[in-house]
Amino acid sequence: MNRLRLYDFLPSGNGYKIRLLLIQLGVPFERIDINILAGESRTSEFLNKSPNGKIPVLEIEPNRYLAESNAILIHLAEGTEFLPYDRFLRAQVFQWLFFEQYSHEPFIATSRFWISILKRGKEYQEELKSKQEKGYAALQVMEDHLRSHSFFVGERYTIADIALFAYTHVADEGDFDLGEFPSIQAWLERVKSQPRYIPIDDKLEFINQN
Amino acid sequence: MNRLRLYDFLPSGNGYKIRLLLIQLGVPFERIDINILAGESRTSEFLNKSPNGKIPVLEIEPNRYLAESNAILIHLAEGTEFLPYDRFLRAQVFQWLFFEQYSHEPFIATSRFWISILKRGKEYQEELKSKQEKGYAALQVMEDHLRSHSFFVGERYTIADIALFAYTHVADEGDFDLGEFPSIQAWLERVKSQPRYIPIDDKLEFINQN
Repeated sequence: MNRLRLYDFLPSGNGYKIRLLLIQLGVPFERIDINILAGESRTSEFLNKSPNGKIPVLEIEPNRYLAESNAILIHLAEGTEFLPYDRFLRAQVFQWLFFEQYSHEPFIATSRFWISILKRGKEYQEELKSKQEKGYAALQVMEDHLRSHSFFVGERYTIADIALFAYTHVADEGDFDLGEFPSIQAWLERVKSQPRYIPIDDKLEFINQN
Repeated sequence: MNRLRLYDFLPSGNGYKIRLLLIQLGVPFERIDINILAGESRTSEFLNKSPNGKIPVLEIEPNRYLAESNAILIHLAEGTEFLPYDRFLRAQVFQWLFFEQYSHEPFIATSRFWISILKRGKEYQEELKSKQEKGYAALQVMEDHLRSHSFFVGERYTIADIALFAYTHVADEGDFDLGEFPSIQAWLERVKSQPRYIPIDDKLEFINQN
């Protein structure tokens, strides 16, 4: 089999989603670091791979690229235990994946990016305020769901959990306090206890040496 | 077969995506209007169906609800000509669906909502400015792709086209000018010439009378 190549940026939760799933699937891959802070995702070479200029990008075969973290998750999980076969359960997984990209990531991930990655929280003070409200609204939707569910869909760990875990477990780096969300906290622990779990800052240095 | 129920708001492009696909699939459904401007998507009755408080919601079976327009599209299109079977083509469809929700809808649809639905463009002047830049960036990504493709994926009409068409064809209502995007304009015409095409404001009054 052709070896997958992941164009990635270590602090990115969107990149982490793919790293975590690939490791849990036991699929070998090569990780290529794109320093988005140094403009490496805006070069014409990179834009040829990913016209929207965002990481992660997965090179599935030589010169066949796939962008959008949650689309990559679906692609990799198809036919595995990480994406249910049942039609209604699948649809619910997709529902949570779109929820994550529309109602969660733009608020929680962006706040974390400004505050903890760019270290320019002061400059973005006004925008951060409106992000707080919407980010907490997303967390409340998650908390309400997890009050009566162990995982997001079908009472088992799927890519819906991976997608939502990525930025929720580092929400504090975007100044979100999970103190009032006990069900989210318990779920974070359930995700962390999954087989082959890796933390977001694991450089996976071994993988490029195989 | 159980009849589908679509909770919908006529001016919504996200609702329109589902209406258009259902009509093109020839699937009968009941349309229930939820006036989001009158708070009807924030009642406890509606939040029980859709905890994130957004339309459209599809009631697949009595008391089985599915939210997120693009997740509904995938669910309905599975096994039909509107979603390719080939694994890489499917992944590309998903990629464009996430692009639409992350890089397109929050800028183009939200501008249209403020300006043409709420009629409060003046009030949102500052926010609208930053939405312009990002909305045009999304249109540029589409234009570049469509310069060498008839449709978004696999040279045929799929749910990727439906999702991106919904707000692009009314982008002028959000003060976006498509004059500089000839490939988008030609693609809009190709979508409009598909069999069983319906416009966004078609009330489909016949469907509840069957």
